[in-house]
Amino acid sequence: MPKKKKSKSKKLNTELEKLRHAVDLLQDREAIRELQYAYGYFLDKCLYNEVVELFCEDCEVRFGGGRFIGRPGVMRLYLDRFRQRFTAGYNGPIDGFLLDHLQLQGIVHVADDRRSAHGRFRCFMQAGTHLSQGVVPEGRLQQWWEGGVYENEYVREDGIWKIRLLDYNVTYWGEYDKGWAGWDKHEIGRITTTWPEDPAGADELISPAPGRWPMTPVIPFHYRHPVTGKKWKAAKRKKAK
Amino acid sequence: MPKKKKSKSKKLNTELEKLRHAVDLLQDREAIRELQYAYGYFLDKCLYNEVVELFCEDCEVRFGGGRFIGRPGVMRLYLDRFRQRFTAGYNGPIDGFLLDHLQLQGIVHVADDRRSAHGRFRCFMQAGTHLSQGVVPEGRLQQWWEGGVYENEYVREDGIWKIRLLDYNVTYWGEYDKGWAGWDKHEIGRITTTWPEDPAGADELISPAPGRWPMTPVIPFHYRHPVTGKKWKAAKRKKAK
Amino acid sequence: MPKKKKSKSKKLNTELEKLRHAVDLLQDREAIRELQYAYGYFLDKCLYNEVVELFCEDCEVRFGGGRFIGRPGVMRLYLDRFRQRFTAGYNGPIDGFLLDHLQLQGIVHVADDRRSAHGRFRCFMQAGTHLSQGVVPEGRLQQWWEGGVYENEYVREDGIWKIRLLDYNVTYWGEYDKGWAGWDKHEIGRITTTWPEDPAGADELISPAPGRWPMTPVIPFHYRHPVTGKKWKAAKRKKAK
Repeated sequence: MPKKKKSKSKKLNTELEKLRHAVDLLQDREAIRELQYAYGYFLDKCLYNEVVELFCEDCEVRFGGGRFIGRPGVMRLYLDRFRQRFTAGYNGPIDGFLLDHLQLQGIVHVADDRRSAHGRFRCFMQAGTHLSQGVVPEGRLQQWWEGGVYENEYVREDGIWKIRLLDYNVTYWGEYDKGWAGWDKHEIGRITTTWPEDPAGADELISPAPGRWPMTPVIPFHYRHPVTGKKWKAAKRKKAK
Repeated sequence: MPKKKKSKSKKLNTELEKLRHAVDLLQDREAIRELQYAYGYFLDKCLYNEVVELFCEDCEVRFGGGRFIGRPGVMRLYLDRFRQRFTAGYNGPIDGFLLDHLQLQGIVHVADDRRSAHGRFRCFMQAGTHLSQGVVPEGRLQQWWEGGVYENEYVREDGIWKIRLLDYNVTYWGEYDKGWAGWDKHEIGRITTTWPEDPAGADELISPAPGRWPMTPVIPFHYRHPVTGKKWKAAKRKKAK
Repeated sequence: MPKKKKSKSKKLNTELEKLRHAVDLLQDREAIRELQYAYGYFLDKCLYNEVVELFCEDCEVRFGGGRFIGRPGVMRLYLDRFRQRFTAGYNGPIDGFLLDHLQLQGIVHVADDRRSAHGRFRCFMQAGTHLSQGVVPEGRLQQWWEGGVYENEYVREDGIWKIRLLDYNVTYWGEYDKGWAGWDKHEIGRITTTWPEDPAGADELISPAPGRWPMTPVIPFHYRHPVTGKKWKAAKRKKAK
């Protein structure tokens, strides 16, 4: 066989492999968006078992200043904490309790070996208890707005994408009748206790505690600037006037 | 020609076809998102002719507890009902009337034969009439928030994706000054009459009528759990306290 | 070499090239969405240097009725106008000042030569100053909602997508306590001065000035109707009742 021929078919094969890889990465992005969106739709309806099953074994959730580590930690957060408090242990929605978690604006980057990925997403929430339900449980609000940013990690195991790290950072809260300008319930949703002392506590508290609205920390970007390729660095603060 | 060669080129062809199919499916997803987003942008501006043209002939809309069937039914809903009531028959926006339909969080699955698809999307609305317009028409609200979930079907005809079923399920309503906790206009937007008795009525009423906020039904997911592959099933309700 | 063989390999190559092009276009869409989303995340945090670096040299921003042309114009808007007024010149967020710019519902079309693209996106904003910050600067609002539509252009230079035209069209504003129905601050955010008389002015004022809420102009679509392929044309207004 002439040598030239061989290299031509080899070139075709190489090009085909490169294309296959590019298509795989596009499919991975779609799968990760779908995973994150499914998380939102399940959470809306207090389907906490379904939420927990979106995570890999070696997972973590950062929420409210606490770290919930591994599947036991993540189950503690969603099943022992949220499910007990929001739906009295029922795996599903309660009439009169709204908990919409809109998921949007995902910037997803998949590692070239297709084993891991990072995703920045945004959450926008409408939540609260309808007046017909009577008294609002202590420590909860009648109705509120909430906005936040995730900087998550995902892993691919046996061809299936799962959440490895869910790192949720609230940007602002606002009670419905006062808005974000009037927010004054500064301790709501803050995790201050650890397991096992608190059976629904975190594995660790994040230290120092992340700044909360009306503080406005920048959640670092997993990605470089899309045009310059520079990593983001905070500018130096000027002295206060 | 040697046998080996033949099979090599055949293998290349097969791989190429598989790749072509994967790319086609990715393009289909993009086309369906675009279709659904275009629906939202048209509806914002009361461009009802343009909305109706997004549907195939054998289409259906489920809205407010009514089923509007086939193109005549869908035209009845958008042209005879919405357009008459919202813009007095004009195909376009009216000053002072806001009707923003944000479309987001789409989970789209295309059938392997590329002839049909399912999509779950979310709608988030801001709507109402500016005070400068004077009186608000009877049966409408001054200004309101609305959130909902679509579980839609799409078909591909002559290479073009169209909406086959638009199934819109409101999660909550809230008048601007009271929010979702204070929602008490329980009959707003409910379809209770059928055609031809009502010239703008539904072809059929959905029975039993879907639960409305403050009820919180789960809209079944067209997709399986992204990690476990299980179909969702409602948990049994515990007895009420 | 037999002729047939040659044409077979040529056919394979042609098919491969077509596929490569389709994959390139899918990647371009992802890159443009990422660019627009990154814009939103940077703007949230008053990272104005990072915002400006998303634009190409020959760029333009249309905002508030003004055109800011070329990199000098765009720097004037983000650095001399927004940064001076919102963060007193600091390139980053100020505690107590919320400026969330949710980016969603992108319809992106890439030119076949992959050198330019159009994108329609939506912005949904929550903004304002927390009460703890004391007095709100003159000409600003305590807290407000805002919705808008972009019809943007992008260019690809040296393989990198950049913003060429950012054309932002506000659909509605609403102060938090009054909503969009009660909007009465009709001069807020309107650009009425030009450079160099105003060092933070526009290069040109758009004439006639675009209609503002409660006016409801249709922002023309860069795309044709996804099903009929027709270009959108406004219907004739009927005489006022």
